Amino acid sequence: PSLGWRPGKDHKTEEQLWELIRREASADAAAEPALASFLHTSVLVHPSLAKAMSFMLANKLSSRTLLGTQLMRLISDAYRADPGIMEACVADIQAVFERDPACDRYTQCILYFKGFQAIQCHRIAHWLWTRNRRTLAIALQSRVSEVLHVDIHPAARIGRGVLIDHATGVVIGETAIVGDNVSMLHHVTLGGSGTGKGVRHPHIGDGVLLGAGVCVLGAHYVGAGSKVGAGSVVVTDLPAHCVAVGVPARIIKHGCLEQPSDKMDLVEDFILDYVI
Amino acid sequence: PSLGWRPGKDHKTEEQLWELIRREASADAAAEPALASFLHTSVLVHPSLAKAMSFMLANKLSSRTLLGTQLMRLISDAYRADPGIMEACVADIQAVFERDPACDRYTQCILYFKGFQAIQCHRIAHWLWTRNRRTLAIALQSRVSEVLHVDIHPAARIGRGVLIDHATGVVIGETAIVGDNVSMLHHVTLGGSGTGKGVRHPHIGDGVLLGAGVCVLGAHYVGAGSKVGAGSVVVTDLPAHCVAVGVPARIIKHGCLEQPSDKMDLVEDFILDYVI
Amino acid sequence: PSLGWRPGKDHKTEEQLWELIRREASADAAAEPALASFLHTSVLVHPSLAKAMSFMLANKLSSRTLLGTQLMRLISDAYRADPGIMEACVADIQAVFERDPACDRYTQCILYFKGFQAIQCHRIAHWLWTRNRRTLAIALQSRVSEVLHVDIHPAARIGRGVLIDHATGVVIGETAIVGDNVSMLHHVTLGGSGTGKGVRHPHIGDGVLLGAGVCVLGAHYVGAGSKVGAGSVVVTDLPAHCVAVGVPARIIKHGCLEQPSDKMDLVEDFILDYVI
Repeated sequence: PSLGWRPGKDHKTEEQLWELIRREASADAAAEPALASFLHTSVLVHPSLAKAMSFMLANKLSSRTLLGTQLMRLISDAYRADPGIMEACVADIQAVFERDPACDRYTQCILYFKGFQAIQCHRIAHWLWTRNRRTLAIALQSRVSEVLHVDIHPAARIGRGVLIDHATGVVIGETAIVGDNVSMLHHVTLGGSGTGKGVRHPHIGDGVLLGAGVCVLGAHYVGAGSKVGAGSVVVTDLPAHCVAVGVPARIIKHGCLEQPSDKMDLVEDFILDYVI
Repeated sequence: PSLGWRPGKDHKTEEQLWELIRREASADAAAEPALASFLHTSVLVHPSLAKAMSFMLANKLSSRTLLGTQLMRLISDAYRADPGIMEACVADIQAVFERDPACDRYTQCILYFKGFQAIQCHRIAHWLWTRNRRTLAIALQSRVSEVLHVDIHPAARIGRGVLIDHATGVVIGETAIVGDNVSMLHHVTLGGSGTGKGVRHPHIGDGVLLGAGVCVLGAHYVGAGSKVGAGSVVVTDLPAHCVAVGVPARIIKHGCLEQPSDKMDLVEDFILDYVI
Repeated sequence: PSLGWRPGKDHKTEEQLWELIRREASADAAAEPALASFLHTSVLVHPSLAKAMSFMLANKLSSRTLLGTQLMRLISDAYRADPGIMEACVADIQAVFERDPACDRYTQCILYFKGFQAIQCHRIAHWLWTRNRRTLAIALQSRVSEVLHVDIHPAARIGRGVLIDHATGVVIGETAIVGDNVSMLHHVTLGGSGTGKGVRHPHIGDGVLLGAGVCVLGAHYVGAGSKVGAGSVVVTDLPAHCVAVGVPARIIKHGCLEQPSDKMDLVEDFILDYVI
């Protein structure tokens, strides 16, 4: 696990989660014949969450350019080579389930949520990037942007337990860092400033919430446990545990949390709530 | 028809509209050989608007997961079971034609406009949702978000004569209500607030216009005949017939319409016009 | 070349560029086996940039409706009939390469960047529009909006050396004009005002930079060399060489450039930099 990340008290292991996912898929396949074949091939025939995820992501990304079988092998290899990728995936599934009130099934998250799928694709592209397969990493980034409408540079570093809700139009630049337990909505931009090649994108601290359409531009730090209201443009650093809104964003509240270290609860309290 | 909806004086019946659509498709097929085969299979071979719509939507949504033939049967079943779905579709086609100056053909709306197609898919998903086929409804919502970049929860209630122009990135949450004759542009969010499961999304009154990128967040009511300027973030109720702009939105004009009940004209006057 | 456009001192000819692109593709195909077949069929088998572009764009746009072979012939025809289309493409490739710090290969731009691909598709659609094949032009616009999430009306006029970075959600209306050497980010809207059929969209001057999510609404002129910060809504004319930000946008700086005519440098200095 990355520094600072720790599982919540209801956190499930990969095996526990996989068992719950299989039970859901079984029940849904019995209740909805139109989806039975899909649920069998996507979930029920697989021996593990890693295999099911490899199949599902390969299916999403495959094209005349990138063959499904080739992608599935590549993704399986990544999961095997770096167990941290699946640990992060497990944390992300639980983040979606706990924080998105419209999500009442783990299978929904895995099979249908573009933001979740895009983050998992990014974790594979980032693995390729760090192993110096940059051309392939860029090809994956591009394919994710085409298929899931989320554009994350493979060099960007994304923590665990991250939720990108709705996800359409999210852009995360090359030198951006997203901490653990961050939640963001669709149309969020973590953008660069200037044409230099060095660090030029923001660092989002643990447990931060970014509302729909927020732009954070330049190498600024958004402190842990802070919240930025929808449509705001952040062009400065923000301290921890503040609330900022507006174009450009101004801080309207400080020290607004009693237990900043209890990340999951923090995010839950704040999701989508626009204090003003 | 839903409460409050009534056809305008030039409103066409389904049969009249279908006849006009066929004439356009015939003329275009003769004039543009590159599209002749497409226009025949999409429009001219079909006996009715409902059949043509079933074919077109099934074609858009089909995937390795959801077979086109299966989808076409499902959509046809919905149109047959609930005639209100096709009545709403007919109202939507005329809304696009009347309010979008870049649209001078009914066939453009049906064959090419993502916002129109996404609303019609939503009407099918909503029908599934109310008949307790929620897993399939969620699968359709997800497919529409992938293919048309519009994310409408199947539980949301959408009125008649609704225009979503350009449409990329629109998000409409689970407990949202959109009234009759509403027009909205791309990137509009009708978003939730908090993590509770109850009503947490906005209610948009009849004849409202929401500019590009507007976010309305939380269980607020935007009164009939009001207008919200592009890029605004609404986090409070708004009265009827006002104009609001800004982040957060402030009311800059009250009682700005003489005939608030004459919905179509109201919307026409206001489309895309940013009063400030 | 359009009035006002002139190549920078490092500007490469089509032949020079094509030679560089082939060298990159050769090296990448050798280094990354997973992409070798793709790079051969997309770049290395083609005799010219125009043929490679025709193949690549046809592949992106092809569907059950628009066959790839038919599209490839159509695009090749356009390049042959109007050499200005390829000259503009060459200028666009160099704009991306020079201004986007995340782009260090010409092949990245051609094969993977939605904004670049969408502009090239638009140039073909615009050619069809001006030759009175409007039905087909609209079909292409719609397909680009589906596949690349960029909605440019075929009647819009786009200059040379234009960069649309990230690109998701960009909307450019029917009577809009975009000058030479303009850079814009994702979610930019050049939108109409009112329901009339005349000129109702903005004119963006040469060398302008529009940040992420900027809306310019109505028949306003944004003067050459000006810059509009992310998330701003412009509902008035803006003079040349100013900086404007906010909802609605206010001018915060005038005459901010020493060499307004040196377009490429101007744009480079200003890219993504949010002065406030």
